Amino acid sequence: MPVFLNSSDVDFETQFTALLGAKREDSPDVDATVAAIIADVRARGDEAVVELTNRFDRVTLTADQLRFSADEIDAAIAEVSDKDRAALELAAERIRAYHERQMPADDQWTDAAGATLGWRWSAVSAAGLYVPGGLATYPSSVLMNAIPAKVAGVERLAITVPTPDMQVNPLVLFAARLSGVDEIYRVGGAQAVAALAYGTESIPAVDKITGPGNAFVAAAKRRVFGKVGIDMIAGPSEILVIADKDNTPDWIALDLLSQAEHDESAQSILITDDADFGRAVADAVEKRLETLERREIAGKSWRDYGAVVTVRDLDEAAALSNRIAPEHLELCVADPVALSEKTVHAGAIFLGQYTPEAIGDYVGGPNHVLPTARSARFSSGLSVMDFLKRTTLSQMTPAALKAIGPAAESLAISESLEAHGLSVRARLDALNE
Amino acid sequence: MPVFLNSSDVDFETQFTALLGAKREDSPDVDATVAAIIADVRARGDEAVVELTNRFDRVTLTADQLRFSADEIDAAIAEVSDKDRAALELAAERIRAYHERQMPADDQWTDAAGATLGWRWSAVSAAGLYVPGGLATYPSSVLMNAIPAKVAGVERLAITVPTPDMQVNPLVLFAARLSGVDEIYRVGGAQAVAALAYGTESIPAVDKITGPGNAFVAAAKRRVFGKVGIDMIAGPSEILVIADKDNTPDWIALDLLSQAEHDESAQSILITDDADFGRAVADAVEKRLETLERREIAGKSWRDYGAVVTVRDLDEAAALSNRIAPEHLELCVADPVALSEKTVHAGAIFLGQYTPEAIGDYVGGPNHVLPTARSARFSSGLSVMDFLKRTTLSQMTPAALKAIGPAAESLAISESLEAHGLSVRARLDALNE
Repeated sequence: MPVFLNSSDVDFETQFTALLGAKREDSPDVDATVAAIIADVRARGDEAVVELTNRFDRVTLTADQLRFSADEIDAAIAEVSDKDRAALELAAERIRAYHERQMPADDQWTDAAGATLGWRWSAVSAAGLYVPGGLATYPSSVLMNAIPAKVAGVERLAITVPTPDMQVNPLVLFAARLSGVDEIYRVGGAQAVAALAYGTESIPAVDKITGPGNAFVAAAKRRVFGKVGIDMIAGPSEILVIADKDNTPDWIALDLLSQAEHDESAQSILITDDADFGRAVADAVEKRLETLERREIAGKSWRDYGAVVTVRDLDEAAALSNRIAPEHLELCVADPVALSEKTVHAGAIFLGQYTPEAIGDYVGGPNHVLPTARSARFSSGLSVMDFLKRTTLSQMTPAALKAIGPAAESLAISESLEAHGLSVRARLDALNE
Repeated sequence: MPVFLNSSDVDFETQFTALLGAKREDSPDVDATVAAIIADVRARGDEAVVELTNRFDRVTLTADQLRFSADEIDAAIAEVSDKDRAALELAAERIRAYHERQMPADDQWTDAAGATLGWRWSAVSAAGLYVPGGLATYPSSVLMNAIPAKVAGVERLAITVPTPDMQVNPLVLFAARLSGVDEIYRVGGAQAVAALAYGTESIPAVDKITGPGNAFVAAAKRRVFGKVGIDMIAGPSEILVIADKDNTPDWIALDLLSQAEHDESAQSILITDDADFGRAVADAVEKRLETLERREIAGKSWRDYGAVVTVRDLDEAAALSNRIAPEHLELCVADPVALSEKTVHAGAIFLGQYTPEAIGDYVGGPNHVLPTARSARFSSGLSVMDFLKRTTLSQMTPAALKAIGPAAESLAISESLEAHGLSVRARLDALNE
């Protein structure tokens, strides 16, 4: 059974705080192992990558087989059904359209002092995308990571995907081609991250690494951060649904289960202003759990971390939502737009009963790589911004330097940075001669 | 002597690669110490913060003295000279004006399928700014970190600054007040970062921590990353000047020294298309080093990491600049704007001979917190974006769900996520009834 909370209960604050603080993930400490793998790849390059890959993935590759050839990709893609192909194409088109609108503008202006200021955006030159192999190989994640990179203008986009026992999901390769990925490597784990960060003979280094992975991948990304850029370290998925009584309990139950089925550590929470509706949804969840394919995973997630919270009104729901800062937030209420203006800490908001979160996982357009574990308080989902960087620009005229240079000199002196001050003073003296 | 390279030399590539790879910073491994401090602050709160602060900073504070009172701030600020006050006010005004232009826009639109999509930006609720004490206490850094946070709309902005032997720089407190900082605490080191991340009885937790610090602070920021957001982990400062012969050698020398004087690990590089000019600048550096106040630090940085690179033409200079991806880039050439369009990997570009980098440190307007150690390849300087996060929005109509829902269902099935598919299918079936 999930927990049932009611904001009118005397111990609600204690219980809600416990819910917020529940540790849902036991990350095994693999840091030492990962450090050794990274050092090995840095020292021995391809040789290490091949050895580690052959051992962990039970394959017998040579260095020149690490990269998928165009023919191999063609052959795999030929297996993709027309239906899957059309669905991925629609998804790619919609994701591209959404992310194209995210491109930020350059700016430049001259201010009253005569200083010309501005900034210019440019793309990261090369990016690497980690794609998990095995059970959790999601072609949709390839689209969600690769398309923003290409929209941003990344010239070289490489994918690494482990191929245990030489198995690969053809949909992943198709999604990669749809997104314009330039290189695909049969490598996974910390060795893939190390190769992308430091480069080997066969796998040139990139500047930024994104994509989800297991504990080894997460630890490796954390370690190479600084040498290259990384995206967030994702935790287990989570959804918060705020729903009033005018909803179909089964729909809401399925939305809760669509997170719960991801992972035993996933978390699904319903907040409602109607206790009876909350119970009806919980009943509908149990009913669906009788037949759901992934009922073991979803059932464990729902029992261990699920919650149904009854509140007095929707303002209280919004306040609790902001404390949770959910990755996914569904607003199934009469006026979802009004409520969304109060729920400011959330990765993605789905408005109204016809917008199940699963739409956003695939075809809505916005990114499905979103901040987990309450990090929506301070971070955003993946976007073109993750593959862009901004260079600031300043140009002084002699008049501008005369106007603002003395203040710079004065501050330099107060910070005991004499050369800073002299670099301004030497120019001012020449201009005043 | 700095190294002198010439792109026409046969071993230039080897030498330039060595210059790029030079490890300029030996970070002591303080991770275990920092982990213990963080655990202590989490477990004992104020008690731990007070103990650690009193020990490291040689003070005798109680918990209720951790925060500066308004009277204490007033008293310190009264010591600030009119000249320093005016200079900081000018700097604050210009930094605020620049960062106000950075505020990104919300967007919302309805596409051909009838889906309403968009995003909304919102500010981080609470941010903490680490300010180093002692020698490297720079009031300008307070402005550069605090003003973007307040422009972004951060409601609660806290500063932690160690006060060894109860000493504090009045200019830091003045800069904090100018920037609208809400709380100032007499705490430093890893204990300050731990308190900001996890909160104590006296220091409420924040959502994002920015600001420079020593190895302990950097290790602590790295450790709390995920629990809260952090800005970049800054390395030693660096400048690249690209200058043709039509420049005053002494001005360029001072610009190089204005980085070198920061830190023995700082790096100053000149790229020029005129070998004689390069030698003249090196001579001017030596001359200035005879009298410069910080000549020991600047001299060591210049000798150990300085470089003068002669190239055939400015296109070659731009290509090398992109490999260096400098934090600061000065373009002292006849057409700096044209050259700036080729130097895409740089934190900040200063155009023309009347824009010494020191202008950007204080009063230009753009931020002086910039990506170091080649990270301008994938990251940007501090901005209002660091204190904002984006929530994506999606709303389907029944018609939109009918149009794109089946593709989502199809992809969910291909990814073996049944509940995802059912959450769409249940609604489609109801709509088709």
